Amino acid sequence: MALEESLAALSLATVSAENAVPTKTLVFKPKTAKTATPTPVVVFALQSTQTPSNVIAKAAEVKEPRLAKDDLVQEFFSTGAKEVSIASLNKGLAGKVKLLVDEKITGAPSDMVLELSTSSSKAALAAGTVNEFLKSTGIEVVSVDFAAPQDEKKDAAPTSKKEALKQEKEAAKIDDAKLIGINVDKTKDFSSWYSQVVTKGEMLDYYDVSGCYILRPNSYAVWEEIQDFFNAEIKKLGVKNAYFPMFVSSRVLEKEKDHIEGFAPEVAWVTRAGSSELEEHIAIRPTSETVMYPYYAKWIRSHRDLPLKLNQWNSVVRWEFKHPQPFLRTREFLWQEGHTAHLTKEDAAKEVEQILDLYARIYEELLAVPVVKGKKTENEKFAGGDYTTTVEGYIAATGRGIQGGTSHHLGTNFSKMFNISVENPKGAEHPRVYAFQNSWGLSTRVIGVMVMTHSDNKGLVLPPRVAQTQAVVIPVGLTSKTSDAQREAINKGTAEIESRLRDVNVRVTADYRDNYSPGWKFADWELKGVPIRLEFGPKDLENGQVMVVRRDNGSKQNVKLSELEQRIPEILQTMQKELLSNARKLFDNHRVFVHEWKDFVPALNAKNVIVAPWCGDGDCEDDIKDSSARKDNDEEFEVDEKSPSMGAKSLCIPFDQPALKAGQKCVRCTKPAVTYCMFGRSY
Amino acid sequence: MALEESLAALSLATVSAENAVPTKTLVFKPKTAKTATPTPVVVFALQSTQTPSNVIAKAAEVKEPRLAKDDLVQEFFSTGAKEVSIASLNKGLAGKVKLLVDEKITGAPSDMVLELSTSSSKAALAAGTVNEFLKSTGIEVVSVDFAAPQDEKKDAAPTSKKEALKQEKEAAKIDDAKLIGINVDKTKDFSSWYSQVVTKGEMLDYYDVSGCYILRPNSYAVWEEIQDFFNAEIKKLGVKNAYFPMFVSSRVLEKEKDHIEGFAPEVAWVTRAGSSELEEHIAIRPTSETVMYPYYAKWIRSHRDLPLKLNQWNSVVRWEFKHPQPFLRTREFLWQEGHTAHLTKEDAAKEVEQILDLYARIYEELLAVPVVKGKKTENEKFAGGDYTTTVEGYIAATGRGIQGGTSHHLGTNFSKMFNISVENPKGAEHPRVYAFQNSWGLSTRVIGVMVMTHSDNKGLVLPPRVAQTQAVVIPVGLTSKTSDAQREAINKGTAEIESRLRDVNVRVTADYRDNYSPGWKFADWELKGVPIRLEFGPKDLENGQVMVVRRDNGSKQNVKLSELEQRIPEILQTMQKELLSNARKLFDNHRVFVHEWKDFVPALNAKNVIVAPWCGDGDCEDDIKDSSARKDNDEEFEVDEKSPSMGAKSLCIPFDQPALKAGQKCVRCTKPAVTYCMFGRSY
Repeated sequence: MALEESLAALSLATVSAENAVPTKTLVFKPKTAKTATPTPVVVFALQSTQTPSNVIAKAAEVKEPRLAKDDLVQEFFSTGAKEVSIASLNKGLAGKVKLLVDEKITGAPSDMVLELSTSSSKAALAAGTVNEFLKSTGIEVVSVDFAAPQDEKKDAAPTSKKEALKQEKEAAKIDDAKLIGINVDKTKDFSSWYSQVVTKGEMLDYYDVSGCYILRPNSYAVWEEIQDFFNAEIKKLGVKNAYFPMFVSSRVLEKEKDHIEGFAPEVAWVTRAGSSELEEHIAIRPTSETVMYPYYAKWIRSHRDLPLKLNQWNSVVRWEFKHPQPFLRTREFLWQEGHTAHLTKEDAAKEVEQILDLYARIYEELLAVPVVKGKKTENEKFAGGDYTTTVEGYIAATGRGIQGGTSHHLGTNFSKMFNISVENPKGAEHPRVYAFQNSWGLSTRVIGVMVMTHSDNKGLVLPPRVAQTQAVVIPVGLTSKTSDAQREAINKGTAEIESRLRDVNVRVTADYRDNYSPGWKFADWELKGVPIRLEFGPKDLENGQVMVVRRDNGSKQNVKLSELEQRIPEILQTMQKELLSNARKLFDNHRVFVHEWKDFVPALNAKNVIVAPWCGDGDCEDDIKDSSARKDNDEEFEVDEKSPSMGAKSLCIPFDQPALKAGQKCVRCTKPAVTYCMFGRSY
Repeated sequence: MALEESLAALSLATVSAENAVPTKTLVFKPKTAKTATPTPVVVFALQSTQTPSNVIAKAAEVKEPRLAKDDLVQEFFSTGAKEVSIASLNKGLAGKVKLLVDEKITGAPSDMVLELSTSSSKAALAAGTVNEFLKSTGIEVVSVDFAAPQDEKKDAAPTSKKEALKQEKEAAKIDDAKLIGINVDKTKDFSSWYSQVVTKGEMLDYYDVSGCYILRPNSYAVWEEIQDFFNAEIKKLGVKNAYFPMFVSSRVLEKEKDHIEGFAPEVAWVTRAGSSELEEHIAIRPTSETVMYPYYAKWIRSHRDLPLKLNQWNSVVRWEFKHPQPFLRTREFLWQEGHTAHLTKEDAAKEVEQILDLYARIYEELLAVPVVKGKKTENEKFAGGDYTTTVEGYIAATGRGIQGGTSHHLGTNFSKMFNISVENPKGAEHPRVYAFQNSWGLSTRVIGVMVMTHSDNKGLVLPPRVAQTQAVVIPVGLTSKTSDAQREAINKGTAEIESRLRDVNVRVTADYRDNYSPGWKFADWELKGVPIRLEFGPKDLENGQVMVVRRDNGSKQNVKLSELEQRIPEILQTMQKELLSNARKLFDNHRVFVHEWKDFVPALNAKNVIVAPWCGDGDCEDDIKDSSARKDNDEEFEVDEKSPSMGAKSLCIPFDQPALKAGQKCVRCTKPAVTYCMFGRSY
């Protein structure tokens, strides 16, 4: 029976389908004991509403609802799953099924037109009629807000800690928070604060597939600034951009066993195309060594083909099962990966440092984030390589270190595996030369580090150099008493400021929205991190000036309109510089020298990273990590009560090394120290 | 028995493993009648050599070789598949197995060190020893060049046509082709020519996963030029860049049934991560409507949020099973996809045209490829949209049209589906307004069109505007009699030309390689499509000039060194302009008006696209396609003998329309014509 006929039988008149909003009717079967009769859950929602099964489970108070199979649907609704619609509901089902209805339907204006459809037919009904009908069936209507945010973090915490966490979160709430702003305190609940700052600051949005995020223009613009800078610099080093496929056949991926071992548990596999099973399963690159190096072997025929220096901007996929975090740990992420091959080790080693310098400049000059350059220990280096250099950052709010970007020298490990070799330039009688290779990568993680470093309880703080919008001009002081002439003069003046700044390449916008107060606009632009705000009102007009307010410290200054083109870029530059120097002071103050083990964990717990004399032994490094961690069995083991459970990893052996005192012992064991090493809890 | 022991038993001395090149030994089982004893094929190759099964099949003269299972390996070699190595070969196997050996091993210097390995052990042997041993077994050694290009096209042709094809290909060979150059004629075997031009011109390389290709710097640089141009232009229109995830959950993807229907058979599915089966299968985006629009619905709350204009540069995957072709039809491809939402249809419609104009400018101003702008017919438009506009190109060598880029107006079809709506700006009492949406995309296919249009039998021809290298300076006229002073003067002069041109932003390089003759270098740079070559020799030094040779037409002119900075950019600009005007002439000459059906197929067969009066009826359009195609049953049906089997599709209804004569009939049927439409065989 077609839908219109069913509806007619139910005395429901269909209406014109113009502007009708599509809906869907789905039937779920919850997990039920085998012997019990299941209670199907009917979900009736707008087509555009996503109906995640955890929300259904919660609202219907059932376990693990799954889309019901045809036979169950047939049993209850006397029609197949593809033909079921709310027209299939009737009084006989009251008490036998549960009914969840989208709040967007229960709350719809009664004249809003809904489109019902099954795979064979369609009909349009007024929302009022639909809601009346649902009531008339006698089945209890549970109205559900499917769009309400699900707190992933809370779910991830073990049940026993949930209550404590809840109380802490309660305490972290900012009492006078504005409705649109951040409502938790950075210092008290860092994780919720971060999540709010990135979403409300419109950097990013959470996505339907767990561990994947949407990079919105406010964050992608930062990435584009980084791309522009890095592309120009690597081009000077003779690096060229290219693009290699995202797919790797299982045969090739699994060739380099040592290399792939680290990635194997996280590789996403394509096994099907359309409805065809693929003969050979195909991986999505977790990184591109095995994608690229067979072709390096093909292209490099003679020492004249060296160096070969390619870079690509792409996305890679690592299907981690750990708790994801915006920018810092995501299943798909954007990065650049450079892969170069050189005739000599010296040439390769020089490039490793040149690239590391560029990474440090991206952090310090673009993102105003200080970093420490150094070398990873053997334990922490890239498995396939000879050595790894790194830039290490510091998140003051949590006292944790964070790896910022790595530049690896691979030696000839891969070139031997893939036979990337050339005839010896000294002559064929000398042994063939295997290319010395480097790889280096920097990802969108940098954006997370930047956000964590500068932002505050008002929202984002963007360094001017990478801000999509560097300045916003807002007309102020307009009231109901303002004359039309004055209003026009203010708006004209605002537009002039905007256009004059645009002419000197300041990325500027003006906010003329007349439905918001200046105060609301201030908060809105602060939330989005725009570096400076220019307020222009009647008094400014009169005095030929504009009030400039810095986002980072709220400092205000009047700028003469005649000096606009000179002063605004200066203020932006000053702010850029001070963001870095302030962050550097924090890092410097929290990078402490520790020579005695007894001082190690307390220093760590005071949110420091530690520079300590170290013996260089990997086992000792493991011991430091273990000994600075809280044990699972709840025995306290040289650890303060309040320390997080994580132990301190070696972050890097800083290039900038103080001299070791004669006879200096390792901070942990009795062996002589060979170097200073930086340790810390880390991301 | 470990490998070293086996080798000792065979009296093969192992050597030092330093610099040893890894090898692999694989055993394949060909397709064999069930009752017959199979003849295993042993493949012994460098680890880095890829050994595709079609090459093995051909070399061993067997059908469908597959990796042998353990029991078969055990039966023949008395060891498991993971332990088999050439040490398992012996005289008893002669005649019972086939042996394919990598040419890189049979041809290796006898002192090159090879590493043999099984899953439990490794050993290093001199290549000479290995080859001696292989001979000694009495098994026939078939030496195979696994890297030799496999002609995919040939394999795709039905067996009956293979011989004819082979003869044609033979005839297309260029007799005096240089070793490094193109050796087939563009006009005689277009498909092989194209494949050679893109690979030898270093635009692209074939990849291990079928239908995927590597974009090398020479082509990626073209894409970057397009990105720079397009980014700057769309920014002026208020479009911002963003990045959305590559994954779509099956639930969301399958929501918009009409839209996804066209893509479903080509969607690649991720079903596994590491060794875990995913609960919900996840698709790789074939396009991003269903990825993005749920978030548009979320972000667009009020009419003040409109227009929302986002663009992303990304790769999408369409797992087509048709014959792939570099740039034109690839399973993963790079593109940009713009998705915008507007308050009014007028605003949306205006943007559709603005974007189409930008696409036309990319073709004409950057790639020097002429296009015709127009509207797709209802049959050919984007399924989910209201109407599709397009730029259509023309490949003179094959006489086929090619779709260049499309800009769609989606109407409110998607906004209703995803509920992208706002309160009516006129007031809440008026019906809600659904956003008017556009989407528009341009892919790396553009590079293929550019190559097909300009390149010739010497290789690539790159338009200066997008060439990675615009000019190459080559020192000439140096012989063994040249004095050191003069040699130095020439090289210094060359370097000066290079640096002066770089200072005026000409992308220039100089070629000082002393192991190649100038003639060889000329051919090499011609192959790679560099727009102009500057030759600098003793006479030029004397006369204060340099000889400039254009890549496209070989024209030569002397340029005074004093005018270098002015003349070289001029020559590049002239070349850019003439490339376009020449291509335009060809397109114009081959876009012919046809008013009578009898002239239609002959015009098509003369490598034209056709502009004809048309009734606008989709059935008639289908009839035109059918009637201009050769039928499968080999009945000739109004088709010339030599026409390809493909019928003519409607390419577009050109915006630029001649007036229809009164009473003009459709070119095919008896109904009155309503418009001129462009038809052609197409890619």
